[in-house]
Amino acid sequence: MNPPIVLDCDPGHDDAIALLIAGQHCELLGVTTVSGNVPLELTTRNALLTLQLLGLEVPVHAGAARPLVAEARHAEFIHGDTGLNGPQLPPLERSAAGTDAAGFIIDAARSRDDLWLVATGPLTNVALALRRAPDLSERLAGIALMGGSTSFGNVTAAAEFNIWADPEAADMVFRSGAQLIMAGLDLTHQFKMGAGHIERLRQVGSGAATFAADLLTFFSNAYAEAYSGKAEGPLHDPCAVMALTHPELFASQDHHVVVELRGDHTRGMTLTDTRASKRGNAPNVRVLKRIDADAAFEVLLESAAGYR
Amino acid sequence: MNPPIVLDCDPGHDDAIALLIAGQHCELLGVTTVSGNVPLELTTRNALLTLQLLGLEVPVHAGAARPLVAEARHAEFIHGDTGLNGPQLPPLERSAAGTDAAGFIIDAARSRDDLWLVATGPLTNVALALRRAPDLSERLAGIALMGGSTSFGNVTAAAEFNIWADPEAADMVFRSGAQLIMAGLDLTHQFKMGAGHIERLRQVGSGAATFAADLLTFFSNAYAEAYSGKAEGPLHDPCAVMALTHPELFASQDHHVVVELRGDHTRGMTLTDTRASKRGNAPNVRVLKRIDADAAFEVLLESAAGYR
Amino acid sequence: MNPPIVLDCDPGHDDAIALLIAGQHCELLGVTTVSGNVPLELTTRNALLTLQLLGLEVPVHAGAARPLVAEARHAEFIHGDTGLNGPQLPPLERSAAGTDAAGFIIDAARSRDDLWLVATGPLTNVALALRRAPDLSERLAGIALMGGSTSFGNVTAAAEFNIWADPEAADMVFRSGAQLIMAGLDLTHQFKMGAGHIERLRQVGSGAATFAADLLTFFSNAYAEAYSGKAEGPLHDPCAVMALTHPELFASQDHHVVVELRGDHTRGMTLTDTRASKRGNAPNVRVLKRIDADAAFEVLLESAAGYR
Amino acid sequence: MNPPIVLDCDPGHDDAIALLIAGQHCELLGVTTVSGNVPLELTTRNALLTLQLLGLEVPVHAGAARPLVAEARHAEFIHGDTGLNGPQLPPLERSAAGTDAAGFIIDAARSRDDLWLVATGPLTNVALALRRAPDLSERLAGIALMGGSTSFGNVTAAAEFNIWADPEAADMVFRSGAQLIMAGLDLTHQFKMGAGHIERLRQVGSGAATFAADLLTFFSNAYAEAYSGKAEGPLHDPCAVMALTHPELFASQDHHVVVELRGDHTRGMTLTDTRASKRGNAPNVRVLKRIDADAAFEVLLESAAGYR
Repeated sequence: MNPPIVLDCDPGHDDAIALLIAGQHCELLGVTTVSGNVPLELTTRNALLTLQLLGLEVPVHAGAARPLVAEARHAEFIHGDTGLNGPQLPPLERSAAGTDAAGFIIDAARSRDDLWLVATGPLTNVALALRRAPDLSERLAGIALMGGSTSFGNVTAAAEFNIWADPEAADMVFRSGAQLIMAGLDLTHQFKMGAGHIERLRQVGSGAATFAADLLTFFSNAYAEAYSGKAEGPLHDPCAVMALTHPELFASQDHHVVVELRGDHTRGMTLTDTRASKRGNAPNVRVLKRIDADAAFEVLLESAAGYR
Repeated sequence: MNPPIVLDCDPGHDDAIALLIAGQHCELLGVTTVSGNVPLELTTRNALLTLQLLGLEVPVHAGAARPLVAEARHAEFIHGDTGLNGPQLPPLERSAAGTDAAGFIIDAARSRDDLWLVATGPLTNVALALRRAPDLSERLAGIALMGGSTSFGNVTAAAEFNIWADPEAADMVFRSGAQLIMAGLDLTHQFKMGAGHIERLRQVGSGAATFAADLLTFFSNAYAEAYSGKAEGPLHDPCAVMALTHPELFASQDHHVVVELRGDHTRGMTLTDTRASKRGNAPNVRVLKRIDADAAFEVLLESAAGYR
Repeated sequence: MNPPIVLDCDPGHDDAIALLIAGQHCELLGVTTVSGNVPLELTTRNALLTLQLLGLEVPVHAGAARPLVAEARHAEFIHGDTGLNGPQLPPLERSAAGTDAAGFIIDAARSRDDLWLVATGPLTNVALALRRAPDLSERLAGIALMGGSTSFGNVTAAAEFNIWADPEAADMVFRSGAQLIMAGLDLTHQFKMGAGHIERLRQVGSGAATFAADLLTFFSNAYAEAYSGKAEGPLHDPCAVMALTHPELFASQDHHVVVELRGDHTRGMTLTDTRASKRGNAPNVRVLKRIDADAAFEVLLESAAGYR
Repeated sequence: MNPPIVLDCDPGHDDAIALLIAGQHCELLGVTTVSGNVPLELTTRNALLTLQLLGLEVPVHAGAARPLVAEARHAEFIHGDTGLNGPQLPPLERSAAGTDAAGFIIDAARSRDDLWLVATGPLTNVALALRRAPDLSERLAGIALMGGSTSFGNVTAAAEFNIWADPEAADMVFRSGAQLIMAGLDLTHQFKMGAGHIERLRQVGSGAATFAADLLTFFSNAYAEAYSGKAEGPLHDPCAVMALTHPELFASQDHHVVVELRGDHTRGMTLTDTRASKRGNAPNVRVLKRIDADAAFEVLLESAAGYR
């Protein structure tokens, strides 16, 4: 039942909650980190701290310290200067198992036939692994990723952060032929966490639940500040995990999706061909369209309750 | 009540119906033609024929025979080889009043303070007029245009035909500072004409109504063939007229809209910044969002009944 | 012998000297002005003042106040804030004959079969005229232009100012099918004016010669400041005039030349295909390769002596 | 005296001759192969065969089977369908030591302080190694590469094959901060091999010399066919080796060089800023400008004579 996964991430508040859910519902073979929401040394530290706090014994391999071609850009305005601002964090007692994330992903994929890669940051590690191991796209069961959008963007009017941060890597992934599941902004903005959700999380009482509640308090306030004035944060990254662990919560549609690499205004956009079939291209991505947000939140509550 | 307009168009089935409505509800000072759905000599012929058939005494000025920078591309797959396939058309008894569309637009705008330009084809003439008369953007009451989209495209996954056909001209218009009203695909696809509408038009009994019904029969079948399999055609161009004559039928929102000139996949896209205000740019376009399609169809019926 | 021309320019020091030579060696039917080295009102003023100072009775028609798509950019660092810094200039006693440069060019071209257009500024007026009169490219004997380069640029590593200032207009001209002669930077940098040349000009003694000497004093010093430290200025624009009046001074080669409109680093570049013929495209431009700089300077001296 | 190098290549006729010279004048620690002139399995085979034929005991590590972002494109029209058409080749008796070229490069660079990387194919392996090991650009003594041009291209009017074949990889290398020496087309076209050279090579009498002569016979004829009609082939790749082993044969200049990734006509161009210093950017590449072709040919003769 529990799918075997490697989680490639850049924690990040919602990455940490993705780890929390994955720790209960996946066979989590390893975690790889990438430069994204904050620089690599911080995303690696945050992955280690989150696993330590949750009591999960999972190896962490650090990966790419910067995008392939694009300049490194981060999202401290959402995640704070540490990438995990908000909760009181314990001293770090662990260290990374290695610094070759792409190599770890390749080895893991070659060691079994059913591995899913869940990617919740810029796709640099995934792209480097794909070019290093041409068999990877077929070895993997698939890649479930949080990134892109079928309509509006967040860092620009057209582009979502993870894709925009390394468009060339994303292009390599979207054209790789691997089985792809995409949780884009249209989907994740249906799964927003506000004061009511945080309250219910606190009532769970476990350390993991308190950690999640503290994360979401900071996160929802950052969204209020940055965008709408409303203290609600879309829980992006957990969607990519739950698409594998709880597929029944999602409605999806297959589409042809390409990453725009150029464009004065559209670089980093995931252009989704939604036209009726006669004019469209062959689908390459399973795009998640709707989430049952209430049921998904129950998964989070239940996962948080599964820890001490 | 009847707004004074010049209608810049490339008939085209829906352009012809835009003329039909404008003839009843506008002070139609002139019609200018542009290369678009079909080449210039055909759009000019079709404008003349439509006015002749409707008995409207309005001067027609031919304009640009090709886009500024882009290669000329047409849409015969929707409009047939003549641009007005379907109805039985009478012999042409009129001729164009001139070949300087941009000059006519400039003179008309300078002759009064309240002129609206309604543009239902590629924006080549409008752009040439704007560069020739730097005062034009302020002289005009505004420009109501059919073009673009806030989401999906038609000729490409990203772009709508009128903007895609001359993106540089569109860019000049969208950045001109003129008051802009945009009827994009999201809007016009709410106003689709099928068998039921055609039937009701035929019952009107006037020549104009029969002409419109014949146009829509061909047009809806072309859409069935080209896109969805369903015999329904979106009545794009009349929306740009009715936005002026029947503003109460529309809901709108102001947005920052830019035309993407580059991009491997997104050239000709009208990127609309729909993000909450803190991140967005200042609006430059009034974007029509919703149309009361039933009431709008009544306007068409009533207009058709106003002719012999 | 004296070719009939319209000179489309943005004076500018070297434009003024192009006028000086054209006044002696061409049938100068008119001068049209464009935004370029300085804004349009200054280039128009400078054209009028130069003709007044030379005693040439030639109509001046103002044209485009800005490029088609690009933002307006000027070159005051070479030409000073007035566009003609250096000489003591008299009060302006003339005024423009019109503000429709493109219309004047079209009428002039249609009035005879042998008209050359000499363009020494950004190609905005020329492009607008080409789109307005599709017959223009064939009506003209040709277009001799100063612009572009077959190797290095000046405003960027890749692009020369006139092309870079309005790349879309240049693209329209280079793909127009008109007979084109191009004097690019490779050519004009073979025709540099320094202290020795200025000295000889002063010895001519005419007012026109003194005017030219004063212009070149400022101009050569501006080049020293901006680029090389050496007080030598390349006499760009006169090359486009002399290509018609003294073709024997030039060696040329036909090439396929395209204007790059995109490119992060190469926008506005005139890419010249210099590969051996089997791989290259069909030539569309006569590219001037070598100038007999000494003989060309004698033409300038002799022209300056032809005025009072 | 003999610099320690890893040679990253895509043999290819001139790559094979680069190996021939490196085998005599370098400490050749390893050879890595990349998709380029022909697909990876052929370039790997050709590297192995060349080393076998020369009697060089050097490990070969296969690398990237395709470019990062660009589609794979090859140059069979110059190198034949095997990539090494011309010579009679023996049966292959060796096999690759590994398939992780980037890993081999990284390990080699970390094992000593003075390693040069010589790259004579598309820069995919080099780029992948740079992103995988952020310390690599400083660990290497430098990278000497054959690629690009300061003026004309070969596959397009603007671009040279190696850079054009993987522009994103080239961009990563040119912006890496590593010490770079570039042998571009302007340089290599000064070092052309024709009938006279081939004759002198044959007179050397060694198997290596005959191999080289056979290579150049096919190669020069391919150039005659593809480009100029003249049976002369520019010996591109050996220049990158000799820049290290015989620096006295070259004149060079430091320039700012960027790789154009976009551009309709200029993608893959190495834009070299040759403007006088006040306007230019800080140099990042030592560009080889002139080669003493006669002396360089003596190096080839003498190298060929060093083998059986």
